[in-house]
Amino acid sequence: MRRASGPHLARLLGDWPSAGPPGPAYGRLAAALRLLVLDGRLPLATRLPGEREMAAALGVSRTTVTAAYAALRDSGHAASRQGSGTWTTVPDIEEPTGGPGAWSPSPRSRALDLAHASPAAPPALRAAYETAAQALPAHLPGHGYEPVGLPELRATVADRYTARGLPTTPDQVLVTNGAQQGVSLLLTLLCDPGDRVLVDHPTYPNALDAIARRGARPVPVPLDEAGWDVEALTAAVRQTAPRVAYLIPDFHNPTGLLMPPPVRAELTRTLTVGRTVAIVDETLVELALDPGGVAPTPFAAYGEGNRVVTVGSASKSFWGGLRVGWVRADRDTVRRLAAIRASLDAGTPVLEQLAVAALLGVADDVLAERRGELADRCDLLTALLRDRLPGWRARRPDGGLVLWCDLGSPRSSALVGAAGSHGLRLAAGPRFGVDGAFERRLRLPYSLRPETLTDAVERLRAAWAAVSGGEDEVRGGPGGDAFVA
Amino acid sequence: MRRASGPHLARLLGDWPSAGPPGPAYGRLAAALRLLVLDGRLPLATRLPGEREMAAALGVSRTTVTAAYAALRDSGHAASRQGSGTWTTVPDIEEPTGGPGAWSPSPRSRALDLAHASPAAPPALRAAYETAAQALPAHLPGHGYEPVGLPELRATVADRYTARGLPTTPDQVLVTNGAQQGVSLLLTLLCDPGDRVLVDHPTYPNALDAIARRGARPVPVPLDEAGWDVEALTAAVRQTAPRVAYLIPDFHNPTGLLMPPPVRAELTRTLTVGRTVAIVDETLVELALDPGGVAPTPFAAYGEGNRVVTVGSASKSFWGGLRVGWVRADRDTVRRLAAIRASLDAGTPVLEQLAVAALLGVADDVLAERRGELADRCDLLTALLRDRLPGWRARRPDGGLVLWCDLGSPRSSALVGAAGSHGLRLAAGPRFGVDGAFERRLRLPYSLRPETLTDAVERLRAAWAAVSGGEDEVRGGPGGDAFVA
Repeated sequence: MRRASGPHLARLLGDWPSAGPPGPAYGRLAAALRLLVLDGRLPLATRLPGEREMAAALGVSRTTVTAAYAALRDSGHAASRQGSGTWTTVPDIEEPTGGPGAWSPSPRSRALDLAHASPAAPPALRAAYETAAQALPAHLPGHGYEPVGLPELRATVADRYTARGLPTTPDQVLVTNGAQQGVSLLLTLLCDPGDRVLVDHPTYPNALDAIARRGARPVPVPLDEAGWDVEALTAAVRQTAPRVAYLIPDFHNPTGLLMPPPVRAELTRTLTVGRTVAIVDETLVELALDPGGVAPTPFAAYGEGNRVVTVGSASKSFWGGLRVGWVRADRDTVRRLAAIRASLDAGTPVLEQLAVAALLGVADDVLAERRGELADRCDLLTALLRDRLPGWRARRPDGGLVLWCDLGSPRSSALVGAAGSHGLRLAAGPRFGVDGAFERRLRLPYSLRPETLTDAVERLRAAWAAVSGGEDEVRGGPGGDAFVA
Repeated sequence: MRRASGPHLARLLGDWPSAGPPGPAYGRLAAALRLLVLDGRLPLATRLPGEREMAAALGVSRTTVTAAYAALRDSGHAASRQGSGTWTTVPDIEEPTGGPGAWSPSPRSRALDLAHASPAAPPALRAAYETAAQALPAHLPGHGYEPVGLPELRATVADRYTARGLPTTPDQVLVTNGAQQGVSLLLTLLCDPGDRVLVDHPTYPNALDAIARRGARPVPVPLDEAGWDVEALTAAVRQTAPRVAYLIPDFHNPTGLLMPPPVRAELTRTLTVGRTVAIVDETLVELALDPGGVAPTPFAAYGEGNRVVTVGSASKSFWGGLRVGWVRADRDTVRRLAAIRASLDAGTPVLEQLAVAALLGVADDVLAERRGELADRCDLLTALLRDRLPGWRARRPDGGLVLWCDLGSPRSSALVGAAGSHGLRLAAGPRFGVDGAFERRLRLPYSLRPETLTDAVERLRAAWAAVSGGEDEVRGGPGGDAFVA
C-alpha cells in the first residue's frame, strides 16, 4: 500500500485551517483531507501517517488528528484496522453521492459526470462489430491469445503512421489494452524507481498516477497558454537528466494546445542530447477542432532511432468501451514490452481488435463527423460559460475534448466539493498537477450532448455561487472578452 | 530491465560443459544459454552479466564468454548496445523457427503449439456475442469505461459463487482482463518487494513470472502425485512467514490434482494462523474430467474473513480470446484493487463483459460438453503416449487440460530444443518450477483436436529419439502399467 508522509500531507493540505469550513479544527482537517481524497490528490488506499506524526507535521494536537481520522472513517473516506493504521477509501464507488473518485470514471452514477472527457460511441461502431463478428470464426479454433496483437490490426496501425509521415512496419506495433497500459508498460521498461520523468505541467492525471506507481519522480515543466517553453524544457533536461519525458504534443490534455513543428524539432534535439526517451501520448491526435483537420505529423517523425516511443488509442477517436490501444516503437522495444506485458495480462480480446481494425478502415469519415460535432459543442460550452459564469476564462483549444478554465480565484477543490450536492462530478485543477498546483483551474469536457452541457453549466453556476459567496468578479474589461476564441 | 547475476546464471546453467553438445566450450555455453532463453528460465530482456563477471562465475576464460555472447547475438538470442551490455532476445517472435517463447503463446506459428493449454472456442460463443451485441446499444451513449466491471457481469459471477456454497455480493467482484491481471494486481496490493510468496512446486509459470515482476520471492513447497503435503506447507508457513500463498486447489496446473475438502480445511487453518493471504486461482475449476462433474466447493468457503481471495477466468471455461477474468474478495480489497488497476489500464471492454455474462447463463450446458470432450481427449493422448513413448509415465489428472509427464530421464530442456526442428513447440518441465527443477518432466495439453494430438505424438517420438539416443527404457514391468489411469 502507498504511504503518505506527514510532511507530504502538510504540503498538500496547505493553509487548511483558514480554508476549511467554520467549526472545530478536527472538522476542518477532516474536510480538507476529504477533498484531497475526492479529487484524487490523495489516492485511494493510501496509508495516512500515524496520529503522532501527523500532529507533529501539522502543528496540531494529537486529539485533533484522532478526531479528524474518526470523522473520515464515519463519512466513509478512511478505514483502519488494528495494527494496519488508517488508509483512504471512498464511501461507495457505486453511488452518486460524494465527489469524483478521480482515479477512474464512476461506473454507475446518476450525477452528471464532467470529471472525465470521453465521447459516446459513433454510429459506425455497430457496423464495425458486425464486420468483426464476420471475421471472428477464423480465430475460434485457436487459443485466442494474441500477446502482441492481431497481425491485421498491427498492419492497419502501422499503415496509418506511414501515411502520416512516419514509416512504420507491423512489428513496430504492440497492441495494448488502451493507451494507459501502453504508458504503464513503457514506464516499467524505461524507468527504475527513483528515476525522473519530465512532464508538462499541467498534464494527464492518470500518467502522473502511473509515474507514481512506478516509484518514479515527476519533473514538472510549466506549460501555459503561450505554449511549450523550449528553454525551460532544455534547462530541465540539463539539470535533472530525466530518463523519460511524458509528452502530449497533440491537443495536450488539459490545455488543448498543439505543439508547432519547429518546437517539435527543437525539443527532439534537446531530448536526444539529454538521452531522454520521449513517451508521446497521441490519444487525442485525431481530434483537431476543425472538421477538415488531419492528424499532425507524428512527433516521432522529427527524431531518429529509438528515442521516441508513441502511444495511441481507439478510446477517444472511437469509444472508451473498446479498450484497445497500441505502442509504436522500434522492434526491440516492442519485444521487450511484450515480455513485460506477459506477466501482467495475456493480451487484448480478439473481437475488439478486429472491430478497431474495421473502424480504422473508415476512420476518415468517422473522425470528420466527430471533429465537426466537437467543434460545435466547444462553441456551445464556451457560449454557456460566457453567459452564466462571466468571471471564468478559457483559451479556445486547438483540439481535444476539454476547456481548461481559469476560475479567477483558487477555489477549484472547494467547487468540486460543493458540486457533489448539485449532482455534478468534476475533476479539480490540482488533479492535473503535482503538489497542489492549479487550484485556480477546472477542466471541463465539451464532449457531452448539448442538453447535458446546458444542464451542467446551470449546476456549475449554482455550485460556484455557493463557494465564491457571490463575489464573482467580471473580468475582461475594455477590448478583452472573458473567453478568448 | 531485469539483470541476471553471474552466480544466478551459474546455478541455472548447472553442469553445462558436460550436458552441452560436443564442440568448443563457447559453443556449449551458447547452446546452454539458448535453452534457458527458449524455455523461459532466462526471461526475455534480461541483462546478462558482464563478460568478466560471467567468466568468474563459471570458471572459464573471458574469451569463452565473449565468443558465447557473440554466438548468441548471431543466432538472435541476444542483443547488445554500446554501454548497455548484452540482453536476451528471441530470433523472431512471429516465425515458427526456434523454441517456444515461453513468456506467452506464439501469435502466429505454423508449428504445433503444445507449449500452451487453451481450448478452442465453444460453438456457444457466437450466440453469446450476438446476445452481447443486442445489449450493447444501451451502453453506447456512455463513456464505456467500466473500471470495476459491468453490474450484470459482477452479479452473474457473484451468483455463481453463491450457488457453489460461497455467499457473494456483486460488490465483492472486480472484473479484470483475465486471471493473470487479477493475480498481478493482488500481488501488487498484498506484497512488497522482497516478501515471500508460498507456491506449490510445480506451479503455473506465469504466476512465477508475476511474483518475480513484483520483486517477491517464491517459497516452493513440493507437490507430487500423492497430493498436497499439509505438514510441509505448515512448516513452510511457520518458517518463512509468507505474506501470500498462491494456490491452485482445483485441477492444479500442471499436475491436474484436486485438493480434497479435509486438506482445504486444514490448510485454511494453517494460513489463518500464519496471517498468510491465499490467492486461489480457480481458472480451471469448471474442468473436472467427468462430464457430470460440478465445480468443487470454493477454497474460500473453508475460511473466514478476508484471508482468501479468489481469481477466476473465462479463458479456459470458454475461450482465451475473450480476455475476461475476475477477483472475488471482500469489498474493501475490491476497492483497493480497483484503485491500483486505474494506473495500469482503464477497464475491460464492455462487449466482452456482456458476452461472458451471456456465456455464464448457459455455462452448465457448455461446460458439460467441454468436460466430455476433454475426458475423451485425455484418454486419447494417454493411449497414444503409452503406445509410442512407453517409457514415459503420467498420472490421470482429476481435471484441467494437461498431462504432467515423467520422461524417466532429465532431458526435458533438450527435448524442447530438439522439438523445434520437428515443428513442435513445447514447454519444458523447468518452466513450472524454480531454479531448474523438473528437468524430468514435460507438460502436454490434451485439449487439442484428436488429429493434432496424433500428429504431435509422432513428432514427440521423433524428437525424443534424437535426444535420448534410443536408450529409452521401458518401465512399468510386472503388474505396473506405464500410464496410470
